[in-house]
Amino acid sequence: MKEVNVGICGLGTVGGGTFNVLERNAKLITGRTGINIRVARVATRTPRTDINLGDIPFSTDVFDVVNDASIDVVVELIGGYDTARELVLAAIENGKHVVTANKALIAVHGNEIFEAAAKKNVIVSYEAGVAGGIPVIKAVREGMAANRVDWIAGIINGTGNYILTEMRAGREFAEVLKEAQDLGYAEADPTFDVEGIDAAHKLTILASAGFGVPLQFEKAYTEGISEITPYDIAHAEVLGYRIKHLGIARRREGGIELRVHPTLVPRSHLIAQVDGVLNAVLVDGDAVGQTMYYGPGAGDEATASAVIADIIDAARAVASSSNQRVPYLGFEPEAMENLPVLPMEDIQSAYYLRITAMDHPGVLAKIASVLSEHGINIESIMQKESEFKDGRIPVIILTHTVQERQMNRAIEELEALSDIDGRVVRIRAENFEG
Amino acid sequence: MKEVNVGICGLGTVGGGTFNVLERNAKLITGRTGINIRVARVATRTPRTDINLGDIPFSTDVFDVVNDASIDVVVELIGGYDTARELVLAAIENGKHVVTANKALIAVHGNEIFEAAAKKNVIVSYEAGVAGGIPVIKAVREGMAANRVDWIAGIINGTGNYILTEMRAGREFAEVLKEAQDLGYAEADPTFDVEGIDAAHKLTILASAGFGVPLQFEKAYTEGISEITPYDIAHAEVLGYRIKHLGIARRREGGIELRVHPTLVPRSHLIAQVDGVLNAVLVDGDAVGQTMYYGPGAGDEATASAVIADIIDAARAVASSSNQRVPYLGFEPEAMENLPVLPMEDIQSAYYLRITAMDHPGVLAKIASVLSEHGINIESIMQKESEFKDGRIPVIILTHTVQERQMNRAIEELEALSDIDGRVVRIRAENFEG
Repeated sequence: MKEVNVGICGLGTVGGGTFNVLERNAKLITGRTGINIRVARVATRTPRTDINLGDIPFSTDVFDVVNDASIDVVVELIGGYDTARELVLAAIENGKHVVTANKALIAVHGNEIFEAAAKKNVIVSYEAGVAGGIPVIKAVREGMAANRVDWIAGIINGTGNYILTEMRAGREFAEVLKEAQDLGYAEADPTFDVEGIDAAHKLTILASAGFGVPLQFEKAYTEGISEITPYDIAHAEVLGYRIKHLGIARRREGGIELRVHPTLVPRSHLIAQVDGVLNAVLVDGDAVGQTMYYGPGAGDEATASAVIADIIDAARAVASSSNQRVPYLGFEPEAMENLPVLPMEDIQSAYYLRITAMDHPGVLAKIASVLSEHGINIESIMQKESEFKDGRIPVIILTHTVQERQMNRAIEELEALSDIDGRVVRIRAENFEG
Repeated sequence: MKEVNVGICGLGTVGGGTFNVLERNAKLITGRTGINIRVARVATRTPRTDINLGDIPFSTDVFDVVNDASIDVVVELIGGYDTARELVLAAIENGKHVVTANKALIAVHGNEIFEAAAKKNVIVSYEAGVAGGIPVIKAVREGMAANRVDWIAGIINGTGNYILTEMRAGREFAEVLKEAQDLGYAEADPTFDVEGIDAAHKLTILASAGFGVPLQFEKAYTEGISEITPYDIAHAEVLGYRIKHLGIARRREGGIELRVHPTLVPRSHLIAQVDGVLNAVLVDGDAVGQTMYYGPGAGDEATASAVIADIIDAARAVASSSNQRVPYLGFEPEAMENLPVLPMEDIQSAYYLRITAMDHPGVLAKIASVLSEHGINIESIMQKESEFKDGRIPVIILTHTVQERQMNRAIEELEALSDIDGRVVRIRAENFEG
């Protein structure tokens, strides 16, 4: 039987899960592949006493793995940017295939890494980096390969989705965040999760694999969920919408939209029903239409499931010396389009607006006329009885799709009106219809 | 550039869609593969005037395609059993790779076809046969390859799901079926769809690819939706459940469960929210947990999307002369387990029971004692005010999980009670928790 040697770098949550599942399901994996996939070396800075490595060579220097001539596939699970980048580039330089779960590394350094890998004709795969255990990269790069992918929208950060789910019960952001931290769903510094940076890493990768464009993480727009209130969540529900922290990538004439922000989605759409820490990615292709991929976006063995799927694909390539592989970002390098990420002002969206107006005659007419002057059409409007008992009334508006530039100008003008109190609350909305 | 020649047999709905998408997205597909995938021959009994084949060789005898020495990949889209079987076996005999959308063919003749294909070392793939455009076979065979798959449950017949969705508004089965026929969702003879035979074909394939067992369509249990009433749908909703026509495959000690029947699923579960003609497949793996794949289960270009994904995979193998491929049913032939399909009496399920009882004192105690004697525990019970005004009252019971054999005996005993009127209505229920 053919044998493929795997070296694991990093034995934390995902590394431990990967080792355990490879051991537990070794016979099953051989049954699926006809290949003996052997863990031939493990390196981790902090050894774990709860994992029995048997007589597998072990070291605390991860570079020992990439310098071991017997290793065919290097599995990078140390996380972070700098050492991970060095490690992966060293592995490639040594002619080894690479599997990683590191979305930050791929989103930020992927173009450099894939270029180096193409020169050495090695695989670099990253299924586990996007939506954890959900095989969505495989779906986009292979399952959807017949399609022009038009847009991708995903709930790709479990922490943020857990917080928004809990806030539907009327609880404040800060209180739920604290609880998520206590439960271990959120980090002590929650910035990456709640401000959309982690989601933007994943979205950047999905967009490149779907559209065939270079990775452009630095151009992604991110807006977090910390300003979302139970008040807006409740009013969105009344309008038939749910607020989700979505990553949205859309192919437009001359560029792509790449943005992470709180978004109203129709409650009747399946993605509105994805609750708690779970992830889901909607992909729209010109032939297939909308498909959705759902499951756990994190967790030791869930993520290991994706890491090992990549190891198996690499092992098949090693065992067959095949050069005909799925391209790094789904397209052959020469077929990549150099589409820019559009500036945020150029994106198109519908909008939820919450305006605090003085209860004067004609105020509604003034608001409507400002919107109309900027080409903004109203889908529905809700003027509530004043709950403030102070002459101020909330006006809630859902608009049709318009360019963000127009909306920015309209909001500027609305906020300058003497009849409007304070800032206009603006949350984008998607109907998944275009 | 490498060139791979494809021959299309059958130019109906899916064949036409496949041809059109291959033409429209030719440049994009070359960009994804680095291969020129050429339609080099088309055969169909009934030529189509709405498709311009240009100078592609055309004939009315599909066997011309498998006998054309230039063809690398034969695409079988003629449907049916006998001619399709002959055609596919002839293609294999001639050393050609095969892509098919024919679930009936694979479910019934797959074991024979895969054995012949293994001898000739050719690919036979069938993504489009299961859940149309959703890349669920790829997910199960490759994306989940690290996992012991424990169960699979799917809404895999769009017609049945459309009917049950519409019946939630209180409409009768026959009325909605008629409408579905008028809309073109249901065939003039709806047996295959509404009696679960089409779903059983797909489930048989999913189970084999997930568990690594031979195809055993003839052992699958099927029960249709024609007996479902709006009354039971409404009462299931009150209990927090929705009735779906599910295909369920589950790995048990000593065998597998393989069954298609109406099933109560918790309304809070994502699969309960899959409405209309759409499909979804839930897959539970020991490492990843539950993942779900959702999208269109039919349609010309949606199905073509899956056909072409298979063509692309085959083209990669042709272009690289690779022998290291994904096995037909996800496992190497020698790793297949010869697990039998368990008799229906051995399956385990929870149950919804609707019993029409005479309004006598003690009747509830009698029912409860019969259930208890057979080891059946009640999860919830609903005794309604008599709506019949004739001394009969409906008693609705949701049980915990029990073996079907016990339930059959209990129902037999219940129906023999003088206090019980007519038959006991029984619908199985799943909580997706084991």
